[in-house]
Amino acid sequence: MCALLKILKDRNQKITDIGNVSDNQQIIDEYPLLSRIDSPSDLRRMPVESLPAVCAELRKFIIDVLSRNPGHFASSMGTVEMTVALHYVFNTPYDRIVWDVGHQAYSHKILTGRRDRFETNRKLNGLSGFPNPKESEYDTFTAGHASNSISAALGMAVASQVNHDAVARNVVAVIGDASISGGLAFEGLNNASNNNSNILIILNDNDMAIDENVGALSEYMAHLTTSKRYNDLRYKAYKFLRLHNLVNDRNKGAILRFNNSLKALLASQQNIFEGLNIRYFGPFDGHDVAGVVRVLRDIKDMSGPKILHLRTRKGKGFKPAEDNPSVWHAPGKFNKVTGERIKGDSTGKPLKYQDVFGHTLVELAKSNEKIVGITAAMPTGCSMSFMLEEIPERAFDVGIAEGHAVTFSGGMAKDGLLPFCCIYSTFLQRAYDEIIHDVAIQNLPVTFCIDRAGLVGEDGVTHHGVFDMAYLRSIPNMIIASPMNEHYLRDLMYTAQQRSESPMAIRYPRGGGVLVDWHNEMHMLPIGKGRRLSNGTSSVAVLSIGPIGNDVQQVIASLQAEGKSVAHYDMIFLKPIDEEILKKVSEHYTDIVTVEDGVKNGGLGSAVMEWLNDNDKNYVRVHRIGVPDCFINQGTVPELRKLCAMDNESIKRLIDDVLNKKGEDSRI
Amino acid sequence: MCALLKILKDRNQKITDIGNVSDNQQIIDEYPLLSRIDSPSDLRRMPVESLPAVCAELRKFIIDVLSRNPGHFASSMGTVEMTVALHYVFNTPYDRIVWDVGHQAYSHKILTGRRDRFETNRKLNGLSGFPNPKESEYDTFTAGHASNSISAALGMAVASQVNHDAVARNVVAVIGDASISGGLAFEGLNNASNNNSNILIILNDNDMAIDENVGALSEYMAHLTTSKRYNDLRYKAYKFLRLHNLVNDRNKGAILRFNNSLKALLASQQNIFEGLNIRYFGPFDGHDVAGVVRVLRDIKDMSGPKILHLRTRKGKGFKPAEDNPSVWHAPGKFNKVTGERIKGDSTGKPLKYQDVFGHTLVELAKSNEKIVGITAAMPTGCSMSFMLEEIPERAFDVGIAEGHAVTFSGGMAKDGLLPFCCIYSTFLQRAYDEIIHDVAIQNLPVTFCIDRAGLVGEDGVTHHGVFDMAYLRSIPNMIIASPMNEHYLRDLMYTAQQRSESPMAIRYPRGGGVLVDWHNEMHMLPIGKGRRLSNGTSSVAVLSIGPIGNDVQQVIASLQAEGKSVAHYDMIFLKPIDEEILKKVSEHYTDIVTVEDGVKNGGLGSAVMEWLNDNDKNYVRVHRIGVPDCFINQGTVPELRKLCAMDNESIKRLIDDVLNKKGEDSRI
Repeated sequence: MCALLKILKDRNQKITDIGNVSDNQQIIDEYPLLSRIDSPSDLRRMPVESLPAVCAELRKFIIDVLSRNPGHFASSMGTVEMTVALHYVFNTPYDRIVWDVGHQAYSHKILTGRRDRFETNRKLNGLSGFPNPKESEYDTFTAGHASNSISAALGMAVASQVNHDAVARNVVAVIGDASISGGLAFEGLNNASNNNSNILIILNDNDMAIDENVGALSEYMAHLTTSKRYNDLRYKAYKFLRLHNLVNDRNKGAILRFNNSLKALLASQQNIFEGLNIRYFGPFDGHDVAGVVRVLRDIKDMSGPKILHLRTRKGKGFKPAEDNPSVWHAPGKFNKVTGERIKGDSTGKPLKYQDVFGHTLVELAKSNEKIVGITAAMPTGCSMSFMLEEIPERAFDVGIAEGHAVTFSGGMAKDGLLPFCCIYSTFLQRAYDEIIHDVAIQNLPVTFCIDRAGLVGEDGVTHHGVFDMAYLRSIPNMIIASPMNEHYLRDLMYTAQQRSESPMAIRYPRGGGVLVDWHNEMHMLPIGKGRRLSNGTSSVAVLSIGPIGNDVQQVIASLQAEGKSVAHYDMIFLKPIDEEILKKVSEHYTDIVTVEDGVKNGGLGSAVMEWLNDNDKNYVRVHRIGVPDCFINQGTVPELRKLCAMDNESIKRLIDDVLNKKGEDSRI
Repeated sequence: MCALLKILKDRNQKITDIGNVSDNQQIIDEYPLLSRIDSPSDLRRMPVESLPAVCAELRKFIIDVLSRNPGHFASSMGTVEMTVALHYVFNTPYDRIVWDVGHQAYSHKILTGRRDRFETNRKLNGLSGFPNPKESEYDTFTAGHASNSISAALGMAVASQVNHDAVARNVVAVIGDASISGGLAFEGLNNASNNNSNILIILNDNDMAIDENVGALSEYMAHLTTSKRYNDLRYKAYKFLRLHNLVNDRNKGAILRFNNSLKALLASQQNIFEGLNIRYFGPFDGHDVAGVVRVLRDIKDMSGPKILHLRTRKGKGFKPAEDNPSVWHAPGKFNKVTGERIKGDSTGKPLKYQDVFGHTLVELAKSNEKIVGITAAMPTGCSMSFMLEEIPERAFDVGIAEGHAVTFSGGMAKDGLLPFCCIYSTFLQRAYDEIIHDVAIQNLPVTFCIDRAGLVGEDGVTHHGVFDMAYLRSIPNMIIASPMNEHYLRDLMYTAQQRSESPMAIRYPRGGGVLVDWHNEMHMLPIGKGRRLSNGTSSVAVLSIGPIGNDVQQVIASLQAEGKSVAHYDMIFLKPIDEEILKKVSEHYTDIVTVEDGVKNGGLGSAVMEWLNDNDKNYVRVHRIGVPDCFINQGTVPELRKLCAMDNESIKRLIDDVLNKKGEDSRI
């Protein structure tokens, strides 16, 4: 951690103290088993018969805590039995469990010594909402972005071999049926079979990503299930052979062939995994904890890569969530008895940027038939759902496949369409090469609608969308813009659909906008032109980009009230940057403060410095406000802004400092 | 194109004039058919019987030109028949052919109006060595990075639907058996079946990527071939049904089921593609041009996604290349009669950086058992082959799967190993998110050995490794270094293997180093420390990073000879940057010239400006030399450096300009 953040964190330490679950005796009464599990070894001492009760307590605990402190609900409810079985059968933390995405790992956190801190889930200095190796040795690898678990697990399995571990280490990757459709997972699968490691891949098949799952693989899963007759038969055959000592490492190949021929006779649908020479077991009921324990024990010591296919149900054990898992993916607070979701009063509050985006895209697409919409598995999150609903023939959800989403958009743009490719900032990192190679080199008019840009709050370190401006700015041909409010978002989208070349990025944050009346009449914006929001007579001008400009406006007003007159420009475009503004500002001010909701290194501040130096105006000093060169954990956005010295108070303090120093200095 | 480059290009225009193939009559005599093909429509007017002769002439032409003007040889020799058949059957350019990677597309270039310019292949202002949409309407999409063709083709197929094209447009993706193992290709396949488009995927199966192919998919391909009996039978059954009008769009589903059950009876190996509901045809002999024409005509109008599996041989038709396709991937000049490769005299010349890397890795790995080596399908290119040969149990070629390579390295590092993950700079773009999410967040000691960093020359726009410093610099925890010569490369590698945390990037260029005696005794380098190469009494200091520093040294010497004394520092580390040097330089000089072999936006120059501004020393002006904000096409490295104003002359001119201006200006 960088020193600055450390100091700020210590200052905020007290916030964690709120997170302790009330009274000990109460816990023991309510959770007679769970309260005795401080680590998986406690769990492993219990008889297998008590596991269903442990699962029931886990569910009750998750429901109780999450009804008060919102988090990812449905996925974790679906993995309770599998989690208990894994920690029961495997010798964690020596054996490794690698969770994919990881928002399904709440039971895992609760069982691995974090029960009493679970109230602090997703809070500043509390538990991360995802597995985080810095938090616990049981969290073996970073999770958050989909599809990395197989590759990471394979790395650990190989490490165990290279390290010549005296005791063979088991490595388990737990991956959902949506995540396994990502290209990275396929690369991992393709390599897994090439290695004689004992990696076990648990396919957590709930037939449901955050939204409805798409693509052939998804249909394929459904078919696999129907071949249960074959799988059961094969598993029984295998057990029989093992019982009679007919299976060992030497004749493994023969058994595999036996299995395949058995299947060739019985299955009308072929199995991808065995096509890749990875042994496949399943599907089994993922909610039968004793059953899962049995099969895990059976296959645990088989050598070579294996897949265990478990069918689970999102939201399992809480009826409203079972009925509507999409809504209950992250339901917010709720009444744990009635299942009623507790929504804040949104009357008179601004719409989310996402909804403004979604409505505007439909509005534009209705009059411009070249517009197509693309989302990578986040139709609800980014409100592409509106277009999928209204103009389904021109809206595409490609599943968890950001690279494909971008190249697919490139192909469409190459043949005359205007793709609006909407991907969360942090996930767009997955498509960095595709942006360069498949879009920017050809200067194609793909519009990247970069959702969740900037600090995202509770999702934490893996999810902040803070790199996009820096990583996009060095790509030739890119236009990069960020609207200060909903009207500018709409104007930028309106502008984007009028061009016939140049990739264009429009970045906007998660959540509520700033205007109640968002539905303006849209106008064309000149590319690369910002606007002056306030003139200033002091030596300082503030240049901001994006909605953080609204905070800057408040700061400027408060300075004005103190008699300090500071200029403020909303740059709108990071690239091409408005040279006219920079010229004007460098003539009238000695100091420029840049404010951006992204990493400082390589962002707006750097762009301004580059222009000043290239134009012999480096005598103007640039002070950058933005995300420092550290990874930022979870917390509310205001808390994190404070931590990063990007909150109003910090912005004001910096401007004040610059003004004061300049009072002493002579003007250049 | 940016204006600067346009001017520089025009200045160099004369270079293209060398590229015209001699005398017209000679061509007509030697190539009676080929000389009449100025576009595919000429080809389509020929009888099918003449196609084998066209293929023979194409091969002769390719052999002739490439023996003199080096390029990618073996792949293009393997695709002659398939290329002829595709242009013969499909109505190009209206129908789209999307080449994956694209170095197999020479016949395609020759048949599509570029025969007479083929001598300029890979030369400045000549033909690109890869399909390039700016060069020809027949080149439908950027190619160079593997695995993008299916996604791009799907985009075009969808565009044809959305555009309501009056004539249905056929879209064909041609992808090799190595490229199809990349995650992006899988994402494309997974989505292809979800769409009712007529996309045809040609699997060009030569069982051989640049190096030997790896992974389960590769073995799988081999098995597919063995099920030829089944495929033949099915194809005959299909033709019979069609002949009797028993196949149409309505009953397509039933036919598919029929096919599957047929297979379930006959094949002992299941088919991944049909698992994804993509109709599969093959394998067929890819060198039987009439046969390929027949099958293409047969399947062309079938609706829905299809895969045609063609077996081909790399180097086909030129014995030395058939025998050793790896060597003949890009053989350099050769004697077209004897097949002898014409090598320059390397006696007394420095080794390639790649070989110094390869030897040093083995040397280090022998004494440090935690070191593992990873390459993504480029063992020969990056010389990981040395470690694969000597310490195979700790060296891994994961195939074309850069994302997996990085996450796999992350998993190994997490469990105590020291992975040296060697990937070409331009391909590492594919793993940008994995670097952040799977390595940097956990601060894992993965060493990224970034090969082919900087301008790479003849491979051109898709292959320049110019973004890495900019895209890595904004990632927290990253150490970024570049050695000025082979000794520093070794020292950096030596230093890298002594740490237990922090990802570290070591970037070095393609090709020969600068020292004959590369084998120094290795030393530990202090992280984040550069070195002074020459002191200077003028107002200018030059800061360089990487081997381009050797050019700077020459410039400095030539300035010295003119009585101009300019300081020069080799920064070695971009991040952390040497603040002591920056402090010293900002105290003694008014101008800093930064020189780097990478994009200027966000690179070394920007890092220096950021430090100067953060430390109230912005009165020092920074002049950046590096790759401008444009995509750079092919040419020799010296030509491209000149184009980018990064050659010695340009560096000298800029320093001179700064010195002269300072003569007039008053010193700050």
